[in-house]
Amino acid sequence: MSRIVALETSDIRFPTSLSLDGSDAMNPDPDYSAAYVIVCTDAADGIDGHAFVFTIGRGNDVQVAAIDALAGHVVGREVEPILHDMGGFFRELVADSQLRWLGPEKGVMHMAIGAVINALWDIRAKRAKLPLWQLLARMTPEQLVDLVDFRYLTNALTRDEALGILRAAEPGRSAREQELRATGYPAYTTSPGWLGYSDDKLARLAREAMADGFTQIKLKVGADLDDDIRRFRTAREVCGPDFPIAIDANQRWEVGEAIAWVNALAEFHPAWIEEPTSPDDVLGHAAIARGVAPIRVATGEHAQNRVIFKQLLQAGAIQVMQIDAVRVAGVNENIANLLLAAKFGVPVCPHAGGVGLCEAVQHLSMFDFVAVSGSREGRMIEYVDHLHEHFVVPTDIRDGSYTAPTEPGNGMEMKQASRAEFTWTGEHRKAGAHV
Amino acid sequence: MSRIVALETSDIRFPTSLSLDGSDAMNPDPDYSAAYVIVCTDAADGIDGHAFVFTIGRGNDVQVAAIDALAGHVVGREVEPILHDMGGFFRELVADSQLRWLGPEKGVMHMAIGAVINALWDIRAKRAKLPLWQLLARMTPEQLVDLVDFRYLTNALTRDEALGILRAAEPGRSAREQELRATGYPAYTTSPGWLGYSDDKLARLAREAMADGFTQIKLKVGADLDDDIRRFRTAREVCGPDFPIAIDANQRWEVGEAIAWVNALAEFHPAWIEEPTSPDDVLGHAAIARGVAPIRVATGEHAQNRVIFKQLLQAGAIQVMQIDAVRVAGVNENIANLLLAAKFGVPVCPHAGGVGLCEAVQHLSMFDFVAVSGSREGRMIEYVDHLHEHFVVPTDIRDGSYTAPTEPGNGMEMKQASRAEFTWTGEHRKAGAHV
Repeated sequence: MSRIVALETSDIRFPTSLSLDGSDAMNPDPDYSAAYVIVCTDAADGIDGHAFVFTIGRGNDVQVAAIDALAGHVVGREVEPILHDMGGFFRELVADSQLRWLGPEKGVMHMAIGAVINALWDIRAKRAKLPLWQLLARMTPEQLVDLVDFRYLTNALTRDEALGILRAAEPGRSAREQELRATGYPAYTTSPGWLGYSDDKLARLAREAMADGFTQIKLKVGADLDDDIRRFRTAREVCGPDFPIAIDANQRWEVGEAIAWVNALAEFHPAWIEEPTSPDDVLGHAAIARGVAPIRVATGEHAQNRVIFKQLLQAGAIQVMQIDAVRVAGVNENIANLLLAAKFGVPVCPHAGGVGLCEAVQHLSMFDFVAVSGSREGRMIEYVDHLHEHFVVPTDIRDGSYTAPTEPGNGMEMKQASRAEFTWTGEHRKAGAHV
Repeated sequence: MSRIVALETSDIRFPTSLSLDGSDAMNPDPDYSAAYVIVCTDAADGIDGHAFVFTIGRGNDVQVAAIDALAGHVVGREVEPILHDMGGFFRELVADSQLRWLGPEKGVMHMAIGAVINALWDIRAKRAKLPLWQLLARMTPEQLVDLVDFRYLTNALTRDEALGILRAAEPGRSAREQELRATGYPAYTTSPGWLGYSDDKLARLAREAMADGFTQIKLKVGADLDDDIRRFRTAREVCGPDFPIAIDANQRWEVGEAIAWVNALAEFHPAWIEEPTSPDDVLGHAAIARGVAPIRVATGEHAQNRVIFKQLLQAGAIQVMQIDAVRVAGVNENIANLLLAAKFGVPVCPHAGGVGLCEAVQHLSMFDFVAVSGSREGRMIEYVDHLHEHFVVPTDIRDGSYTAPTEPGNGMEMKQASRAEFTWTGEHRKAGAHV
């Protein structure tokens, strides 16, 4: 037996606003940041659990405070019973009635739960000496459904239906695991498409993305239609008529505006339109999907929880589902999200980028391929070539695909030196605030 | 000219869990709390702005940290330009792209913005020597629509439609103001219905509620159907066949379960079923509304923002809309919510209780009556007789109605002695945590 002896948090911020990397129509100057947590145990193996919530600067301290507020649930507890019943422990955190009031199940407090849950999965995977994707993909269907909170889902997905999905995928698991280890998981890249980049830089990076073997590129749109037409034309000229190019409005539009704007770009054949409007607007996304068909609608990086994904799928509002590793309550809730997508037959193409999101979310897509949807068809993980050097196990992209990680853990551990160097001291805050 | 010189926050918690006041199917042991903020200025008038976010205990410190994170937007700023353009300042806070990432527009960070906005309205009302309801009700339709952020609303409510609603209500304003001052605003009470109370206590309090002139009572349901049938029968025996009795499940049910449970209580003629399931589940509420008609569905105290209210109304999911003074981004977003309700012809019956919620939200209903919907028909404000003594201007209930406040301000100022006495020292935390 071992105990959790500390929940160590830190406020880590990278000054990315200085270079306009990551600029889009809603987020002109992000400072990619991590509200970082280490679940420390007194076990002889020396294994701690690492995870984080990704934010874009100001407010990262609030996110850290929310993680700190969970100390009472974990510090002093025995590790093994928690790791043995991750579903039960997950539901304990989500159901804390007093903390639940702060959401419920959304925003800062919900993401904090996700960080603690993800850190516990890191311990479990490292103890098992397996990368997270493989640990999950080797659990039985019964063990997997025990991880899920089916509350509020049963009118779309019951426990039995989830079991059926997982059981149907069971026979092919080991063949798909081999295939994954041999060929990786397809990636697409957003690197060429940031709004702050010049047309020349866009063209150069699009050319490089194709040469590097990426499956698709993505352009940020939504600030100015004439600019978008020019930039999309530039990208099409570089990439040719058939290469998939998605567009991403980062929630910039009204519903009617989205339909008009996307149709004005239809001649360039967008692979999907991502985040056309408020991530909360299920009915709005459904109207947009009807209004821009056959162009597909994608969203999810800001979908606050499984209840929103459920509705987006029920309403036919999305044709591509974009989970995020740290927006919801961790691995457990994302398993629910993957099961919902499988139930509705919608491909999952995760959101990544930021800092560490690629390292984290690849495990979920790989698990999905091996044990849930059983398919990589029409699926790919976003990739941005940025800040990977700060991670103990950085992503390994070969021929435009994510190589399946072999190192134990959830992939979220940041190098100690990076954590020390970018621990927030308040300096950028002064520059960024309105004082 | 004066400046904002400080954003003073405090963590205030009342030990209500000791008495089971406020117990319901999802919240068995709340400690009613306030993440309290004072916007301090250097003006010679000595007027500061008071407001708070209501929470139910653990995590109140996180909410305080979120308010603190807004200091950069307010401290050092000139007061008068902000008060003169509350719409612009509101949109500035909501649109801070880095803080927005933590929601967007939901949860801890969004409620923090609401607290700061509400505190600024307190300053504006006190400087005008008017209660908030009257300050708002005397603004022109043009001034009022300038307060609203129509982003994500325009497919349901445009600025012009909002102007039309407000202009249509303009001629009767002064007559309704007189009427309001003479007769108050109807109240209903939840006091008899908490789950933790015995049947005898329920019966006694229901009898008292009728004697006190309340328009309706409400019972908490959802933990056990047999208990609910017995308790509802008890209440009906006390109140007779015609007195309105609403029921409230506090998000306890699945969609199908809600329909079955409510229909099992239909013989007692519930006035409405409140929060039958997840507050995020627009489509689920719509299905429930169809499944329990003609019993009406009510929700909103946990509706995170105007985008959720918009959809609940678009989908015909609610027949009663329950705004909350502190769940969304303050007075400005609640004006949007009131306008949406008026557009869709749905009555607003605000959520209150907790600590200070009655004091705060009455201003919004009274403003609605005078200047937006122009009606009290089918409308009433929740009332719980609890913790009012801690407020500088406590609610004044006469003959089951809220008396229109005459004192300047937003009603949210808590007595200094109460703030000092109940400032959190960490003691209940130890008792409530799982260590």
